[in-house]
Amino acid sequence: MTDVARIPVALLTDYGLSGPYAGVLTAVVLSINPEAAVFDLSHLIRPQQVEEGAFVLGQVLPFLPQATVCVGVVDPGVGTPRRAIALKAGRLTFVGPDNGLFSAALQTRPEGGTEPGTAVEVPLAPGCVAVELVNPEFFLQPVSHTFHGRDIFAPVAAHLTLGRRLSDLGPALTTMQAFPAWRAMAGSDGSLSGRVVFVDSFGNLVTDVHSEDLPAGPVRVEVAGRAFTGLQQSFQEGPEFAVYVGSSGYLEIARRNADAAAALGAGRGSRVLVRPGR
Amino acid sequence: MTDVARIPVALLTDYGLSGPYAGVLTAVVLSINPEAAVFDLSHLIRPQQVEEGAFVLGQVLPFLPQATVCVGVVDPGVGTPRRAIALKAGRLTFVGPDNGLFSAALQTRPEGGTEPGTAVEVPLAPGCVAVELVNPEFFLQPVSHTFHGRDIFAPVAAHLTLGRRLSDLGPALTTMQAFPAWRAMAGSDGSLSGRVVFVDSFGNLVTDVHSEDLPAGPVRVEVAGRAFTGLQQSFQEGPEFAVYVGSSGYLEIARRNADAAAALGAGRGSRVLVRPGR
Amino acid sequence: MTDVARIPVALLTDYGLSGPYAGVLTAVVLSINPEAAVFDLSHLIRPQQVEEGAFVLGQVLPFLPQATVCVGVVDPGVGTPRRAIALKAGRLTFVGPDNGLFSAALQTRPEGGTEPGTAVEVPLAPGCVAVELVNPEFFLQPVSHTFHGRDIFAPVAAHLTLGRRLSDLGPALTTMQAFPAWRAMAGSDGSLSGRVVFVDSFGNLVTDVHSEDLPAGPVRVEVAGRAFTGLQQSFQEGPEFAVYVGSSGYLEIARRNADAAAALGAGRGSRVLVRPGR
Repeated sequence: MTDVARIPVALLTDYGLSGPYAGVLTAVVLSINPEAAVFDLSHLIRPQQVEEGAFVLGQVLPFLPQATVCVGVVDPGVGTPRRAIALKAGRLTFVGPDNGLFSAALQTRPEGGTEPGTAVEVPLAPGCVAVELVNPEFFLQPVSHTFHGRDIFAPVAAHLTLGRRLSDLGPALTTMQAFPAWRAMAGSDGSLSGRVVFVDSFGNLVTDVHSEDLPAGPVRVEVAGRAFTGLQQSFQEGPEFAVYVGSSGYLEIARRNADAAAALGAGRGSRVLVRPGR
Repeated sequence: MTDVARIPVALLTDYGLSGPYAGVLTAVVLSINPEAAVFDLSHLIRPQQVEEGAFVLGQVLPFLPQATVCVGVVDPGVGTPRRAIALKAGRLTFVGPDNGLFSAALQTRPEGGTEPGTAVEVPLAPGCVAVELVNPEFFLQPVSHTFHGRDIFAPVAAHLTLGRRLSDLGPALTTMQAFPAWRAMAGSDGSLSGRVVFVDSFGNLVTDVHSEDLPAGPVRVEVAGRAFTGLQQSFQEGPEFAVYVGSSGYLEIARRNADAAAALGAGRGSRVLVRPGR
Repeated sequence: MTDVARIPVALLTDYGLSGPYAGVLTAVVLSINPEAAVFDLSHLIRPQQVEEGAFVLGQVLPFLPQATVCVGVVDPGVGTPRRAIALKAGRLTFVGPDNGLFSAALQTRPEGGTEPGTAVEVPLAPGCVAVELVNPEFFLQPVSHTFHGRDIFAPVAAHLTLGRRLSDLGPALTTMQAFPAWRAMAGSDGSLSGRVVFVDSFGNLVTDVHSEDLPAGPVRVEVAGRAFTGLQQSFQEGPEFAVYVGSSGYLEIARRNADAAAALGAGRGSRVLVRPGR
């Protein structure tokens, strides 16, 4: 172990902001490492929406500082035998439940359609190291049945920022849960069949149609019974609605200075169909 | 006074997050002590709900880092003669209005039933030291009539992190306001008569029935015209609703992956009756 | 450039808190300067409400720590040719779009009535130095069309905390966009004709009637078809509604322990008329 150090600790949960749960995570980390740079990614993942949390975390991952320890807790299975894990994937470390929340950090993703996902077990890729958190030395005691964020994940993360090694925390794992990759399915006619995977706070619809899968040239995008022609470069360009590749690399549908989800009656899970041409 | 130091400063208010009020507290603290580790517990205590703030703060207290200075502001009496105080209670210091918000830090609590509380004056326990904030040297000037969080509490907290002593801030107090302890009343028949004191962001009902008061063996819990048998170990165990001891040590009622408050039509203040047996 | 340093970085956006956008700003800053003291002013400015963001920022400015770099992003024009700027105004530096958001930091403000404002170009006052952000060396690459907060503003701010000079970022500007000052119009009869410019999270109505413009003695305040006599010293004093000078220096209308905006059916933009006398 090294001395205390200003390692970043990033928090992502569905705890909400109106009660004690989110703030207590920061309190626990600072109790163990007063120099940690704790910051919030979001505590407003919708309750129990593990896949939504996984998608949001995927948007943030490339931008996390070197050596960040990310505590992720969207954990409807707390209190059941689901595993608690720490995962080292490249330059980042993750601590939380093994339920698919850290899918974006795994290079291995299960096959799957474009339905709202069920996490399944996948082998760990080379370069990923994971352990099951079983060593109670790094937990707060007593460990509650319902708040592992406070009692297990936050303290383990804090100890990791102090230089503790994964191998001290528990036995190595060879598999972890992951959701299928968020990628629309290609049809034989050149179309892409996908869905809305996230609605942001502006009401923009973020789909699972990735820019890498888009045909060259104009496309026709159908969602919620409406059809739009794209692509625009940004959400200011369309006459009213705009279809563009968002900052995440995925196709998005926005309404200029307004809420596209509300205007279209669309939301997470809405079908999206992309065809080449106008 | 010592040099600047990375002392934690924890913020709990009803200021909301959509305007300037919450962020300005952090700004003021960092203006005075750039090394302070300021973090948010919550700014979404419901407006003017002092007892709710006191309960949430009570959940967090055991987990605050050593030497934390906690700024708590749920302060409907700002601008009236209610006292502004600093309180040292064990390893923690609190700064805010004297209206019951810091009840959980006081070892002395008034007698009371299980009704939504009225704070009353109690003598300070040995080990608690409080002063009235009257020395304007540590306030921002001019002091507004409506925003003591910015003008009094945050700057005083910052000065405390720099080593300023309570006795420099104003005269010692021998009493402070406190709410009755959150403990359901025991009936002569072994029942416990309590209430819902908090609804968390999942919709879980947190009651004032403490695990220490529960009878051994199964219990029947009545709330909002429904009866449940407990205890389960966690909110994943019940067939639909679960009754369990939450991470706070209090009895909670949850609905699996859903909002129990909405499903039951229950909320803060709802009566809860616990009887031994099934 | 100096070594890494604990310079404050303050964030104000309309990104909301439920997705990845707000947290990623902090991540980007810490990636470049791990010692920066990043904190949130608010991420709940209403979407695309630039003037609202400008007003909230104005409330906070006087309280920001020395040398703070403020990233402000309410930016409906992202992806259009609106300029990206950095502005040094006195002891503070601002980074964001040139659309009026930083009006309160400019000493020059356009003439204007009391209508919801349109930002117009004003010459920079002596003491203000601004540059257009064109040097891609300080951007994340590739720069997206829709998320300049992440790709331009946050990284530029981080580089500024490391001692980078404005002149390294792009060419100097002589003008910037600004909203008219928030000041009610004086009538020839001694009245003040203004509007509600902000509704805070308590439902208090914050107007553009500044205390410096108020007549001595009692005033009659009309809003939403109701008339009130003021001034009270704080929102606890009125029988039900109170009219007082708020912590921002502006006239506010509050309802005791309740939501004045809801009770009066008033909101941002509502007309306010102030007359001398009762």
